[in-house]
Amino acid sequence: MRLSKTFIKTLREAPKDETAKNGAYLIRAGYVHKEMAGVYDYLPLGLRVIDNIKTIIREELNKIGCEELSLTTLQNPEPWEKSGRFEDQEVDIWFKTELSSGGLVGLAPTHEEPVTNLMRSYISSYKDLPVKVYQFQTKFRNELRAKSGLMRGREFLMKDLYSFHRTEEDLDAFYAEVEEAYRRIFERLGIGEVTFETFASGGIFTKYSHEFQTFLPVGEDTVYYNHDKSVVLNKEVYNDEVLKDLGATGEKFEETNAAEVGNIFKLKFKYSEPLELKYIDENNEQELVYMGCYGIGVSRLMGVIAEKFADDKGLVWPDTIAPYKYHLIGIGDKGMAEAEKFYTGREDVVLFDDRDKRPGEKFADAELMGLPLRIVISDRTLADNTAEITDRKTGKNWSVNLEELFEKF
Amino acid sequence: MRLSKTFIKTLREAPKDETAKNGAYLIRAGYVHKEMAGVYDYLPLGLRVIDNIKTIIREELNKIGCEELSLTTLQNPEPWEKSGRFEDQEVDIWFKTELSSGGLVGLAPTHEEPVTNLMRSYISSYKDLPVKVYQFQTKFRNELRAKSGLMRGREFLMKDLYSFHRTEEDLDAFYAEVEEAYRRIFERLGIGEVTFETFASGGIFTKYSHEFQTFLPVGEDTVYYNHDKSVVLNKEVYNDEVLKDLGATGEKFEETNAAEVGNIFKLKFKYSEPLELKYIDENNEQELVYMGCYGIGVSRLMGVIAEKFADDKGLVWPDTIAPYKYHLIGIGDKGMAEAEKFYTGREDVVLFDDRDKRPGEKFADAELMGLPLRIVISDRTLADNTAEITDRKTGKNWSVNLEELFEKF
Repeated sequence: MRLSKTFIKTLREAPKDETAKNGAYLIRAGYVHKEMAGVYDYLPLGLRVIDNIKTIIREELNKIGCEELSLTTLQNPEPWEKSGRFEDQEVDIWFKTELSSGGLVGLAPTHEEPVTNLMRSYISSYKDLPVKVYQFQTKFRNELRAKSGLMRGREFLMKDLYSFHRTEEDLDAFYAEVEEAYRRIFERLGIGEVTFETFASGGIFTKYSHEFQTFLPVGEDTVYYNHDKSVVLNKEVYNDEVLKDLGATGEKFEETNAAEVGNIFKLKFKYSEPLELKYIDENNEQELVYMGCYGIGVSRLMGVIAEKFADDKGLVWPDTIAPYKYHLIGIGDKGMAEAEKFYTGREDVVLFDDRDKRPGEKFADAELMGLPLRIVISDRTLADNTAEITDRKTGKNWSVNLEELFEKF
Repeated sequence: MRLSKTFIKTLREAPKDETAKNGAYLIRAGYVHKEMAGVYDYLPLGLRVIDNIKTIIREELNKIGCEELSLTTLQNPEPWEKSGRFEDQEVDIWFKTELSSGGLVGLAPTHEEPVTNLMRSYISSYKDLPVKVYQFQTKFRNELRAKSGLMRGREFLMKDLYSFHRTEEDLDAFYAEVEEAYRRIFERLGIGEVTFETFASGGIFTKYSHEFQTFLPVGEDTVYYNHDKSVVLNKEVYNDEVLKDLGATGEKFEETNAAEVGNIFKLKFKYSEPLELKYIDENNEQELVYMGCYGIGVSRLMGVIAEKFADDKGLVWPDTIAPYKYHLIGIGDKGMAEAEKFYTGREDVVLFDDRDKRPGEKFADAELMGLPLRIVISDRTLADNTAEITDRKTGKNWSVNLEELFEKF
């Protein structure tokens, strides 16, 4: 991408109502634009970050045999009435709207009911199981307040996976596979070391669910962790009974804030029972299908990662999800000409600041935008046949020979 | 994809309310699932078709310097009130909903107002122009009736491009580039020969707009065309004045039905004026920005292409957008083993029917699903070291040597 050709540019200020660090930096650096609280447009750089996050998640889910589909936003109330969740007293964040042909419809805040209902067309025999389907889909939640930038959206992108099984053992085995896949995903996203599987409350059919919580001072959740963080609990289950359950009585726990980036849940019959999703087993008996659901907040992750790594100069992206790897700056006529040569053929990994601007302004923009490595080619560096590399995260810089630059970068 | 592993299967019947051929076949073949009239889930095969259509459009738009972004569904009424389009009397297909914090919001039926408003943050000088941005985004239109399958959606996927220019000449030049890009897109989608640029009504600032209409018996539009289809007009502008304008007086015109798959429109100041999108020119004068908008119905295209090419046995996909290129069928133990070998390493282009089913059932499913080439490897074909290829479109079949199959397919 050439900065001289793209419409985006850094902005001096974020809107006054944007109080979250992630939101303010993402707006100022030209990654997103705020439509209203909790509702953001993704501009070209932001869309590339989202796509990189999606690619990592997709690769890991495909590895464990999941299939991608895409469900709708508009929701027929029928399946939700069966589970009791269309009522505002039951789910208090619905957006609802009226069909011109008559009747209320909802905007999907999640998709358990429609996916269970869909599977009634595809699951009838034990031979049809297991099924594991996921989607990247915009969810709508009518939050009263949304002040955490991309960490709490009224309209946000989520990856949601649903699994369908014959037996509890099969559900348990797949649940363990998802736990592993999630660990690999957060590792690859660069937040593996600060993201912990956390005990949270279960439901009718299961004692606990698990969340993946990224420790973060401005996170909206409160969690408790023991000395080596081998046991982490959401505040809602931090009590003597649960500690006893986990064999952690007497251990010392610390409190911290965290942001929930994923959750996994053994639903068992929670939806298959009211929606009558059944299969015929080998003995010709009708049985309820076991279900699990597994979410990851995709746009929230962009906010959490921005928030976690940003410093006082701007954003700092992990290599794996940065929109481009290199922020290339040419200074002076010769420097610019050599930078042009480097850019050619590397358009997909290089953001090239080819604008006619002062070096100081270009450096400040590079820091705000947060790409992993800055490459400066100037008349001065060319004098000793080098380019200057700066690591955005550590601030370290060093020279590389031009030949090495063209060969290895 | 292995049919033994995917959850999808062909269905004997479409829902009774699905009267459109494209909808019925797409449902029966496992490409989509109907949530309600005009609202469809994309199942794995359908999502691959959508992604293939998107890739073709994206490639052609990137070639003419467009940038991809993603705007929101939830719409703040403010910019729409400036253009007068938030009123239901003005735009009668709004879905609207209430924020829990108070205030009405809309679900975007299109995005002229938010993109114009967004550009107020990015366009201030003549140096910032031109700007050309597009997105693939779900649109919501509260249609009273939606009976044409994927050809008329209440929730549907659209590619919308918006351009911003200093001068009318610059707008005209880019408009011509888009016309060319659209021709290439429809060509690559396999409907180039039956899709015609069509004169349609303009607006306040422009006499005509252009539609791209695919001739189709069940298309919802009526168009008129001359003998060599060099002049095609939407019914709304088929009158003596327009024919005179186009120098086509006295020519004989025929009437046909057609489906609108794209449209392009010179907006000029239609939105930049009420939303005050201005730039400062070289002489320090403030000027209004010229705008154009350019749509392609992505999910509608899937419906139109399904409708256009389907025969009495099922779907027939053009090579370029088929979810897979080959429908592989193994028959008998040796046939299945050889098919396994062929499948290995070709997972991304082959749909492999490895199910334990009768050949007749497999053949019928292959016809319904409509992939370009069927490959059958059976104990019988192996006897003379061949596989049998059948072209779905023409029905022609022929034998290829196994060595040739492994080398060239």
